[in-house]
Amino acid sequence: MLVGAIEAGGTKFVCAVGNEKNELLERVSFPTTTPEETMKQVFAFFDRFELAAIGIGSFGPIDVKPDSATYGYVLSTPKLAWKDYNFLGDMKERYDIPMGWTTDVNAAALGESAMGAAKGLRNTMYITIGTGVGAGAIVDGKILEGIGHPEMGHLLVRPHEHDHYKGFCPYHGNCLEGMAAGPSIDGRLGKAGKDIDPTDEVWDFVAYYIGQALEAYTVILRPERIVLGGGVMKVPGMLEKIKTQFTTLLADYVPVPAVDDYLVTPGFGDDAGITGAIILANQSVEK
Amino acid sequence: MLVGAIEAGGTKFVCAVGNEKNELLERVSFPTTTPEETMKQVFAFFDRFELAAIGIGSFGPIDVKPDSATYGYVLSTPKLAWKDYNFLGDMKERYDIPMGWTTDVNAAALGESAMGAAKGLRNTMYITIGTGVGAGAIVDGKILEGIGHPEMGHLLVRPHEHDHYKGFCPYHGNCLEGMAAGPSIDGRLGKAGKDIDPTDEVWDFVAYYIGQALEAYTVILRPERIVLGGGVMKVPGMLEKIKTQFTTLLADYVPVPAVDDYLVTPGFGDDAGITGAIILANQSVEK
Repeated sequence: MLVGAIEAGGTKFVCAVGNEKNELLERVSFPTTTPEETMKQVFAFFDRFELAAIGIGSFGPIDVKPDSATYGYVLSTPKLAWKDYNFLGDMKERYDIPMGWTTDVNAAALGESAMGAAKGLRNTMYITIGTGVGAGAIVDGKILEGIGHPEMGHLLVRPHEHDHYKGFCPYHGNCLEGMAAGPSIDGRLGKAGKDIDPTDEVWDFVAYYIGQALEAYTVILRPERIVLGGGVMKVPGMLEKIKTQFTTLLADYVPVPAVDDYLVTPGFGDDAGITGAIILANQSVEK
Repeated sequence: MLVGAIEAGGTKFVCAVGNEKNELLERVSFPTTTPEETMKQVFAFFDRFELAAIGIGSFGPIDVKPDSATYGYVLSTPKLAWKDYNFLGDMKERYDIPMGWTTDVNAAALGESAMGAAKGLRNTMYITIGTGVGAGAIVDGKILEGIGHPEMGHLLVRPHEHDHYKGFCPYHGNCLEGMAAGPSIDGRLGKAGKDIDPTDEVWDFVAYYIGQALEAYTVILRPERIVLGGGVMKVPGMLEKIKTQFTTLLADYVPVPAVDDYLVTPGFGDDAGITGAIILANQSVEK
């Protein structure tokens, strides 16, 4: 049995085919342009296979409420060509098979939880800190979605006393994403993070904000492990800085696993999302 | 069929008997002193009935991990007589029947979700702001518990620019509990909240911190409704102040129901916890 998988990111799409063991067999990748152009490439790829189901992890915000009139749509994204696009509807029209539908970070959380760095655990999280901040949680083995999918990057954080940057989030200014995602580095120093020395104090600020967020996720969700990915995590020493901040801020209030087991890097590297989408496809067959 | 229920609070115990319709039939209440004295009264009450199960919602922190060596214990509570007390073990020794075991706020969350102000909804929250701050979440109809129960009162908040109080939490100083629970009022003004005018600016500070917490719970859990209880919520105008702060802080980033449907007072008043414990007892029979 073959299943399809899409990791729809804001800059590129990955489409893949996997099997019932959640193994990735074949993949393609292309830039995210307009729905018309991009979906043509999606269909060209999947048309070649006989698929039992497709799993989709999409950039957001998206509508994940099955009883909503706009279920399956991309919502008010800054990528205007995709705003109000009926992604799942167009997929269903082309392929009348079961489909799983969630966010790209939820798919990555599922991938890491089922087969990656959080394998075997029932309560886990995945957070990515890159051009934005997104996170997904697995609660009791299932993707956490209430009235909609989480937007955990928009947690409000305390400004660091030496950080005078006001944040770039158009909604909240200095929320986690506004203060710790990639554009905040450029916003403070006028150049990209890759051009900033790893010893620059800006990385201490970023670690302080991520540490606060991890404290919040910990006291609210009590996960067994948190997987941290994305471009900002590739800065040398970043994970260690975050561990120190988190440990200081939590102040031993609730028991967590040893910090080296609790805060970890992805087991799949950049493949967590597409792997999660394959798992999602297989789960939707079982339903 | 009869079931028993305990709402074990830090200052008083409530014991009750209910039926399979989750109706409360009889109750007693007595002060929380030492485990020896208090449990004697618990046993004296329940010994009179033939019970199919008992549900317990206890003050915490408690161990809720079934595979833990100290499952069912009260953990490092400041109420020292209860620290490391094997609450569930002593109950099981006296009554060899199924038992449900969770925190007092989780029991209240379950009560409000099943039969109270959040009735009919599958993703809800209950938060109480009183001598401390506690909260429980219902996710997809079940109590949220990961590696342990949430401690959502210990979310770190941004200090209000005009509030110079440092907070009373022995772990975090100015976390939500440290800045918004009852003792913070006394800590700032030297008198109890009931003696402070409802127009005092301290209530604006408190509403600002609670609003921040509700923003965090919203972007992380995406509940359908949040029920707010506890002594601080009885200050005239408090709910309205909180709605204003929450709405400003969320800045329309994620869709939530109309704020008057989203942020509500308990349907059960002070009975949410004991009702939730009855429901928990009936659920443990079904298992």
